[in-house]
Amino acid sequence: MSEIDSETTAPRRAARTSGRAGGRASRIAARAAALPEEMRPVRPGLSGGSYKPLSDADIKKIHDAAMDALEVIGLADAPQSGIDLMTKAGAILGDDGRLRYPKSVIEDTLAIACKEITLHGRDEQFDMQLSGKKVHYGCAGAAVQMAEVEEGTYRDSNLEDLYRAAQIVQVMDNIHFFQRPIVARDVLDNLEMDLNTIYACCAGTTKHIGTSISEPHHLPKMAELMYMIAGGEDKFRARPFVSNSNCFVVPPMKFATESCEAMESAIRAGMPVLLLSAGQAGATAPAPLAASIVQAVAECLAGLVYVNALKPGHPAIFGTWPFVSDLRSGAMSGGSGEQALLTAACAQMHHYYGLPGGAAAGIADAKMPNMQSGWEQGISNTLAGMAGLNMVYEAVGMHASLLGFCQESLILGNDMLGQALRCVRGIEVTDEKVSIDVIKQVCLEGPGHFLGHQQTLDLMQTEYVYPKTADRLSPKEWEEVGRPEPLVEATKRKKEIWANAPKTLIDRQIDSEIRAKFNIYV
Amino acid sequence: MSEIDSETTAPRRAARTSGRAGGRASRIAARAAALPEEMRPVRPGLSGGSYKPLSDADIKKIHDAAMDALEVIGLADAPQSGIDLMTKAGAILGDDGRLRYPKSVIEDTLAIACKEITLHGRDEQFDMQLSGKKVHYGCAGAAVQMAEVEEGTYRDSNLEDLYRAAQIVQVMDNIHFFQRPIVARDVLDNLEMDLNTIYACCAGTTKHIGTSISEPHHLPKMAELMYMIAGGEDKFRARPFVSNSNCFVVPPMKFATESCEAMESAIRAGMPVLLLSAGQAGATAPAPLAASIVQAVAECLAGLVYVNALKPGHPAIFGTWPFVSDLRSGAMSGGSGEQALLTAACAQMHHYYGLPGGAAAGIADAKMPNMQSGWEQGISNTLAGMAGLNMVYEAVGMHASLLGFCQESLILGNDMLGQALRCVRGIEVTDEKVSIDVIKQVCLEGPGHFLGHQQTLDLMQTEYVYPKTADRLSPKEWEEVGRPEPLVEATKRKKEIWANAPKTLIDRQIDSEIRAKFNIYV
Repeated sequence: MSEIDSETTAPRRAARTSGRAGGRASRIAARAAALPEEMRPVRPGLSGGSYKPLSDADIKKIHDAAMDALEVIGLADAPQSGIDLMTKAGAILGDDGRLRYPKSVIEDTLAIACKEITLHGRDEQFDMQLSGKKVHYGCAGAAVQMAEVEEGTYRDSNLEDLYRAAQIVQVMDNIHFFQRPIVARDVLDNLEMDLNTIYACCAGTTKHIGTSISEPHHLPKMAELMYMIAGGEDKFRARPFVSNSNCFVVPPMKFATESCEAMESAIRAGMPVLLLSAGQAGATAPAPLAASIVQAVAECLAGLVYVNALKPGHPAIFGTWPFVSDLRSGAMSGGSGEQALLTAACAQMHHYYGLPGGAAAGIADAKMPNMQSGWEQGISNTLAGMAGLNMVYEAVGMHASLLGFCQESLILGNDMLGQALRCVRGIEVTDEKVSIDVIKQVCLEGPGHFLGHQQTLDLMQTEYVYPKTADRLSPKEWEEVGRPEPLVEATKRKKEIWANAPKTLIDRQIDSEIRAKFNIYV
Repeated sequence: MSEIDSETTAPRRAARTSGRAGGRASRIAARAAALPEEMRPVRPGLSGGSYKPLSDADIKKIHDAAMDALEVIGLADAPQSGIDLMTKAGAILGDDGRLRYPKSVIEDTLAIACKEITLHGRDEQFDMQLSGKKVHYGCAGAAVQMAEVEEGTYRDSNLEDLYRAAQIVQVMDNIHFFQRPIVARDVLDNLEMDLNTIYACCAGTTKHIGTSISEPHHLPKMAELMYMIAGGEDKFRARPFVSNSNCFVVPPMKFATESCEAMESAIRAGMPVLLLSAGQAGATAPAPLAASIVQAVAECLAGLVYVNALKPGHPAIFGTWPFVSDLRSGAMSGGSGEQALLTAACAQMHHYYGLPGGAAAGIADAKMPNMQSGWEQGISNTLAGMAGLNMVYEAVGMHASLLGFCQESLILGNDMLGQALRCVRGIEVTDEKVSIDVIKQVCLEGPGHFLGHQQTLDLMQTEYVYPKTADRLSPKEWEEVGRPEPLVEATKRKKEIWANAPKTLIDRQIDSEIRAKFNIYV
């Protein structure tokens, strides 16, 4: 576990100088003590579901259309091993080389598919329980550039960036997992890149890691490294802390042959898999939002047949990630309202099947962490959470429609996700919380305000989320302290985190053994 | 009507140079023609309701508690005229000077209260129909400072700022009304300020105007001015384009004596009223979110009794505006998740009563239009819309927890609201839109992608919202055109709007008559 405290247990920032008199001292005292996990206003795994973009009838229509698509259109390009597995499970290979799935095959698969997944952190406190409408936010992606906010420029991403991002995520309470968001472009050999990606992530964070596999034959070496970090294969298999983010399809309706082979190896090696279907509405998926969900659902159901044909009940995250095209140019756009809707609707499809699922939100088209980026990331993340998406991928740090990554954006994004999680938590309407007793007391007997009231003191830490880097100063205070800009504060915080982070979170002895065996560039 | 076109009908920005080959020419042709109103992807009055932070049982609990509060606690400080009206309607004046409301009084009021309100623009095309879950976004507030983004500073707000803001709002498609957001601090006489506020708003925009009344005796002069602008009292009364935003209560549970007197005059003058209860959870309202809604509902119900006792069925907007305190300092905070929840939940209470309602969203605590501001404004606006709030006040431009206003924020905010509206619209799941026919065609016969498909062309303008100022360039294009920053683009657009806006949108002849009669400082 990190030597630096997480943002929650770290001393809170110094009290304001401008507080009102009434009960201020007691309010400060009340928040001096760190809160136990279960009392925190927000936490991983809060349950969403208050937002339902699709009606029950809509969900059924989408399901039926997906079943039709699987039966009528099917998927091309499965590897021979996949064809063998899936035809054995009941899929039908056509003369055109496409695998088609009768309804019964899907139904049989759904019956045996894994319905509750624990995604393990290396540190148990970061374990995530994926089921129902429990929500987790985290990084993901394959950005190839870094947004440098001090210079206002973009540059190629490298391994060091990945390691540094992991260090930041380790201490961000509202970022719950770290799927590799950045491609280490300075590691030119693909196998070495895959290995160093795992190493850099694990050196920086003990939260759950996700990674992709560039080529199927890399898997044995990758597994060897993961087993070493775990302290043995049995230990990894007991608590697999690295999952395989697998783009097993090339939409529309084709298997990605090599990725499928990699997936088979990953499953055999004990890795949970993310079945990722990333069509782009209007480009590689149909333009109607509903039809693009149909296609994503169909593709992931085919993937689910594949996984369960290989290993029944193996943990697989239903990764419907339909994206949006800006149809003026055909280019990917991740920051739109259409994207927010697609992702939230996918969560409802996951619930319909009772499958742990994930999708993408929080993507900014904006190049830098600016106002545009704030609304783009904030809206889609909040809708995803309120819809009860188990895994909100790409929730933080992603810019330029997934091409760019920004470290400061992680730090500001942590505050943004705190707010999204607060929305996910919702409003508790218990008898106690609607009671008019306190209003009565304050109005008829009391001081005419609620500031110093015991109820206020009791709730200030458990009902309210306070941002860490975002700014709530009055204009007067803001002038007095030199007009702090949250982005500049984020850069300071970034440097502070990096200065204080342990060099590696991998056991020293194991680390030496790894370095003796692999070319580690971090 | 403005001489400059609105953002919708203005020529769209030049096509990208980087488009893909497939169907690009036809895509450009398809979007050359402006869309008729009913085909636009987003528009005023879209229906929300897909987001429900409160269950039916929650709503009933809040209602019951509000009824109890009205019966047991009641409200103090009604003016004598209000006491006379409300006791006649069944309220009971206690020895403690508080008016208490038996349940039957509330029920009788709800039976006769106005359920559908048309808020008129001076231009009919901007009329808003307030009923059901129809959503409108607009300005409101009483900011006393302006955020100057080029200088990075705050300064006092003035009348010119208000007029200039109105000019911008006039051409922003997703800002549907213009309640006065800025206090004209350079107009020192209060009556002159009230008069010049109306003038400046009407000179800049023909959308619906909201304003407050500093002192009750100002109303006759204000009415005279409004009637002149309308071209006669009868014309104003037929289509009242100015409503009175009235803080008729000082929470907790006290009438604001003078504001109530002003409200009576406004109603007699033919103005719709916004019954605005602006408690602050943890300060002037209880700290539990649910209880702060109880109090706001109770206060607005009392206001509704008042209005309907004076003039049965008079248009009154149910303005539950519970705010949030940052309980570390007691200061107001508008950008939090708690605020977003409060506002969205209020919309459900409005629907429960079947009353047209409004509340506040879109407030940034951030001082400038930065990333923080983006998520703060974006999340609360989207939730408010998805909950089906009729009038989303303070939706755009507001910073520093309502103390600051920013012109550029209006322009960027228009894009943000476009996205929020897109979320409100939701996903249409018709048979046509889930049909697998196009997928089948593309996969089995076609080119393997959807870019040039007729379906894509047909939907690109009606299903997808394109931002006007926000940036979707690829990093490469972005570098090539000099790294445009949306905020800088917004400043350019602001200056362009001001350069092209007509000097006044008030009839020249009437304008001269107004200037002869009143001290107009614009």
